[in-house]
Amino acid sequence: MSDLRDEIEDLYADYAACLDDGELERWPEFFTDDCLYQIVPRENYDRGLPLALLLCESKGMLQDRVAALRRASVYAPRSLRHIVSNTRVAQADGAVIRVRANYVVFQTLLDDVTRVFNAGRYLDALVREAGRLKFRERVCVSDTVVIPGSLVFPI
Amino acid sequence: MSDLRDEIEDLYADYAACLDDGELERWPEFFTDDCLYQIVPRENYDRGLPLALLLCESKGMLQDRVAALRRASVYAPRSLRHIVSNTRVAQADGAVIRVRANYVVFQTLLDDVTRVFNAGRYLDALVREAGRLKFRERVCVSDTVVIPGSLVFPI
Amino acid sequence: MSDLRDEIEDLYADYAACLDDGELERWPEFFTDDCLYQIVPRENYDRGLPLALLLCESKGMLQDRVAALRRASVYAPRSLRHIVSNTRVAQADGAVIRVRANYVVFQTLLDDVTRVFNAGRYLDALVREAGRLKFRERVCVSDTVVIPGSLVFPI
Repeated sequence: MSDLRDEIEDLYADYAACLDDGELERWPEFFTDDCLYQIVPRENYDRGLPLALLLCESKGMLQDRVAALRRASVYAPRSLRHIVSNTRVAQADGAVIRVRANYVVFQTLLDDVTRVFNAGRYLDALVREAGRLKFRERVCVSDTVVIPGSLVFPI
Repeated sequence: MSDLRDEIEDLYADYAACLDDGELERWPEFFTDDCLYQIVPRENYDRGLPLALLLCESKGMLQDRVAALRRASVYAPRSLRHIVSNTRVAQADGAVIRVRANYVVFQTLLDDVTRVFNAGRYLDALVREAGRLKFRERVCVSDTVVIPGSLVFPI
Repeated sequence: MSDLRDEIEDLYADYAACLDDGELERWPEFFTDDCLYQIVPRENYDRGLPLALLLCESKGMLQDRVAALRRASVYAPRSLRHIVSNTRVAQADGAVIRVRANYVVFQTLLDDVTRVFNAGRYLDALVREAGRLKFRERVCVSDTVVIPGSLVFPI
């Protein structure tokens, strides 16, 4: 159990570093080919409403999202910084490992103080692929609905 | 030692999830019948002044607090999100395990950005009851004194 | 590996507690005599520019820094609170252990809400000295450049 926890913590740290370092092209590789990535406002999630801020249902859609951010988006240079806490393995008895954690992402624009960009919880389903843990699902249930700059970055 | 650490991390994650999910009725169950729960401003704590923002000296008082929040308080819908870090077992050689950790709680009101609600440190005394770790004491020493909305929620 | 991780988490928690508790005189003792402590803005770090907000190249310089803060600086009473997350051992196969982590430091001034003081990442090189892990290098790559109050505290 402790080894699995270490492995999960490493995965989460690597995922956060990928986004914090702006290595977006590496981001889809954390997922299985067939996957679900979603950022959903807490209010919608709690009421079972399907509307998401971002929804990708395959690794290809994640790659499209990265390409769109790289090519099309106009946005000011910024730093993102992930803090992940309260990681909890909810279920690990089958092929799928269900994990929950809290996250807060901070954003720093040039010439501005650092602010909370997004806070919420991760609801994850992990599977092992060629010995490595990958996300089959990462659902980001976002407390934050007012997105500074209206920009939907992966979280 | 590593097993104990995992157990403590699980307890803290579960405690945070209880409050973040708004399951207040479950909150007193983290404590022993005879217990101390306190939110005390750092300045008072450092000077040995007894004044606390919230003080409960038994599980019954915790339950009363929950009932008061449910029944009597008028407050806007909000999300709370706990981040806990720097957990440190200070003493574990007797029946009582003393642990210290840093916490930050974020608050999101509808139609507003996410803000820091409260930051500080937990000073805990844990005991084992029927095989499960429980809080005999949780003292929340709060750096934050200006409480947004003046609302005293459990932390 | 798991033992090393626990040891590193303990070191980081103790380091954070030292600064959060204002025990500045204890801070240089976390470093080897010959050491590097640096707070460098992310933009400079990424471009290889040498300019740092704070640079100390020996334990003596760290002690000087503490003395300067104690004697010379005029600043309002404040609380600092460290959150450290996503700790990752990048290399541990020689005498030097390279670790990376994310940090956010929160500041609370009297009669004000709690705000983000500094966010960024630690890039550390640890060595063992008389059985205890010490910092040979701690490079704080700061996302935050606009420092509230312009005050350079150790992070």
